[in-house]
Amino acid sequence: MNFWIIAYFLGWILEVEAVSMVIPMIISAVLGENDVWPWFLLLIVILAPVGLILTRKRFRKGNFYVREGYAATGLGWIALSVFGALPFFLSGRIPNFVDALFETASGFTTTGSSVLSDVEALGKGLLFWRSFTHWLGGMGVLVLILAILPMNGGYHMQLMKAESPGPSVSKLVPRVMDTAKMLYLIYIVMTATMIITYLISGMPFFDALCIGFGTAGTGGFSVRNTGMWDYGRASQILITIWMYLFGVNFNFYYLMMRKKWKDALKMEEVRVYVGIILVNLLIISLVIWRFNYRAEGYGYSLQHAAFTIGSLMSSTGFATVDFDKWPELTRLMCVLLMFIGACAGSTGGGLKVSRCLLLFKEGRKEMHMLFHPQSIRPIKLEGKVVEHATLRSASNYFIIYVMLFVVSFLLISIDGHDFTTNFTAVLATLNNIGPGLNAVGATQNFAIYSIPSKLVLTFCMLAGRLELLPMLMLLYPKTWTKHY
Amino acid sequence: MNFWIIAYFLGWILEVEAVSMVIPMIISAVLGENDVWPWFLLLIVILAPVGLILTRKRFRKGNFYVREGYAATGLGWIALSVFGALPFFLSGRIPNFVDALFETASGFTTTGSSVLSDVEALGKGLLFWRSFTHWLGGMGVLVLILAILPMNGGYHMQLMKAESPGPSVSKLVPRVMDTAKMLYLIYIVMTATMIITYLISGMPFFDALCIGFGTAGTGGFSVRNTGMWDYGRASQILITIWMYLFGVNFNFYYLMMRKKWKDALKMEEVRVYVGIILVNLLIISLVIWRFNYRAEGYGYSLQHAAFTIGSLMSSTGFATVDFDKWPELTRLMCVLLMFIGACAGSTGGGLKVSRCLLLFKEGRKEMHMLFHPQSIRPIKLEGKVVEHATLRSASNYFIIYVMLFVVSFLLISIDGHDFTTNFTAVLATLNNIGPGLNAVGATQNFAIYSIPSKLVLTFCMLAGRLELLPMLMLLYPKTWTKHY
Repeated sequence: MNFWIIAYFLGWILEVEAVSMVIPMIISAVLGENDVWPWFLLLIVILAPVGLILTRKRFRKGNFYVREGYAATGLGWIALSVFGALPFFLSGRIPNFVDALFETASGFTTTGSSVLSDVEALGKGLLFWRSFTHWLGGMGVLVLILAILPMNGGYHMQLMKAESPGPSVSKLVPRVMDTAKMLYLIYIVMTATMIITYLISGMPFFDALCIGFGTAGTGGFSVRNTGMWDYGRASQILITIWMYLFGVNFNFYYLMMRKKWKDALKMEEVRVYVGIILVNLLIISLVIWRFNYRAEGYGYSLQHAAFTIGSLMSSTGFATVDFDKWPELTRLMCVLLMFIGACAGSTGGGLKVSRCLLLFKEGRKEMHMLFHPQSIRPIKLEGKVVEHATLRSASNYFIIYVMLFVVSFLLISIDGHDFTTNFTAVLATLNNIGPGLNAVGATQNFAIYSIPSKLVLTFCMLAGRLELLPMLMLLYPKTWTKHY
Repeated sequence: MNFWIIAYFLGWILEVEAVSMVIPMIISAVLGENDVWPWFLLLIVILAPVGLILTRKRFRKGNFYVREGYAATGLGWIALSVFGALPFFLSGRIPNFVDALFETASGFTTTGSSVLSDVEALGKGLLFWRSFTHWLGGMGVLVLILAILPMNGGYHMQLMKAESPGPSVSKLVPRVMDTAKMLYLIYIVMTATMIITYLISGMPFFDALCIGFGTAGTGGFSVRNTGMWDYGRASQILITIWMYLFGVNFNFYYLMMRKKWKDALKMEEVRVYVGIILVNLLIISLVIWRFNYRAEGYGYSLQHAAFTIGSLMSSTGFATVDFDKWPELTRLMCVLLMFIGACAGSTGGGLKVSRCLLLFKEGRKEMHMLFHPQSIRPIKLEGKVVEHATLRSASNYFIIYVMLFVVSFLLISIDGHDFTTNFTAVLATLNNIGPGLNAVGATQNFAIYSIPSKLVLTFCMLAGRLELLPMLMLLYPKTWTKHY
């Protein structure tokens, strides 16, 4: 393992984190939160020079392979979470460090699971910081670094691979730096447009910003104890629309930008995404209208079914109604939407639509082979033949995913909470959703878990956001030997 | 599809079923159960000649491929269950036909899930029949037919493949007929030995026979309303031992018979099976001693932990204690043991140890590839390189398994029972275990489900026993066209 190059990227990550803390520091200073802003200042004063030292050229030596890319990503995200947790902890507003770490990792990984019941007690400075981590983590910190950092050598792609969601990374344009720039350009334009629409719908400025960050990164932290209940119908409908939009593969927007409408509309993953949404919307809205919201009418059911489906599938995790109280069939449909998740190449989590599609096609092929044992019909996605290596890695991803799920499930079961709570707690963190069912339902929080379980779930959030391998690798003894 | 050959095998299956009904008919006639034995007689009188007609030589024409083997197996097992259910239904002792079908499919597939709370009301004739279906289904009806039927042509293997559990069929000896004979020989000898030990331990004769069939087939039906509670400690310990033994790959016994002790003891699957048992035994016995059976002592905890682990892992499903009341960690460990299941080539269900081992090795290889991207180290099992096709089919099996699990879970959720109940109901039927958790726990039964849900769960039992494809294939429209 080439530790020099890892230190180099860690330096850049600290740099980004220090710069990101400037605005929350100003907000808390202006509002006179005197137990908060000095800690932001202290962290900026420490992180910035340390980062600068680590990013000096002489650190950039030696070889850079996939493993270094993965290790840099895994360690980088741990560093982000640990330093990002310090303002919460040092200010005493989250008195337990593991709670602060859970909350921050939940922010950066765009999970949105919380251990707090009274979020407003954090104060606006920390609330802004908490929501801003969603925005930063949504598109990825390393992707940001790639966008601003002129680099030579072939290792850009390794970083992109390690941080980008989905079974395969598609470069929008030939150069990685340009791809990263393009992604951030789309991301910034969409976020800005969204925030303006939120303001027009009557949301207060601070809320529009923070909820905007949470929607863009598909995070899910709210800034009020009442969650989404305070905002009017217009705002809720707008949030619904934007959640769906941020769950779409960004290739789609790139194609739109290039005016390749036809190619964009032909994207198989986006079509399946829309198809899943429509089918679920139809069934869920009818069921909850019949069983829960007869009095409120079908319009009400449709609106909140749309909100919940968008929230869960894009892995945002906002809630306008408590879907934990819905009939069992619809509750389970919600759980399955959490598993599927958003499109690859979006800011959303979950297994990703395209990966599920690949797995489905593999299963179907196995059936087909019964009838045509000699058939060599290849599996296609987006009209192209899928390489054998991609298929194998989608299957193996699923296997590793299940293994990690099982181990985490076992570990948190030691706390003694019920099966459904534990199952959906792992699901909600590993897929970066936010809420689960029962004791971790939409109106509950993760404070019920013990310290060790919170650490397990923090690991799940990071592993889920980084698509497993960068985090699992850190547990592998071989990673820590210099030669192998 | 070549329907002639399918009819031919169906004929043989009806023949076997007719012959199997003779003993329960005699028992119920001798005991004067006059509402039962005439129906057995009627069925024998109808099935035997119909079977004879279908097995006439002129039905055996045309080609026989994997698909015919699978379709014959799937349809054969449905026929077995439907006709096997008639004595329960016609006698009126199970007044609903779907309940009777569920019970019979549960018998043949060696699941052991029941819809009855008062099993003793069935009477001894039907109780014998119910338990005998376990024994017949355990090793497989088609394997029995292969053992007694001199056949030419290369299609024996297709049937063996369709009915035998595990990722790949290992022929013990070169000829399929000899393999089938050998399997039944081991099966009969072990069953007879077991029943003798049960009698020595003080179990009543009728119980020893029926519980013996249930243990050998890893079924799980009991013959008393009190389940296993009536039998003494010695009997319970003997049942424990035999459950473990019937979960072992029968290759192991074949190697022992041939006095290849070393090869037998080196079998990787058996070693992993034993390893999983020991680890679970250690943890579960300590936890339940600490939290449930402090008063009864460690010996008690160890005995019942051993019984439960053996029962779940071998997919038998007998219970001496209500593991649903154990602490959450141990409950979940029980659920995971149900997923893993027994060894391939045993009478047990579940995913099978060797398949889990293959999946684990695939996952590990994916990690390994990070460090050695150019590595072509092949995956080995039992010291031999696993063929690419076997690996792919293990992955795909898992994918199809999960898909079927999800769809069944959704369908039975319509009934409205809770998440854990539904999850473990699908698990218990698809893996041919018997009991689940909560409302389908060890002291409960499946009567709570609606008729459509019972049909879904019946499908799961058959699909689980036949390793998915033979049953799923029947849902595929292509199967029913003559040419494709």
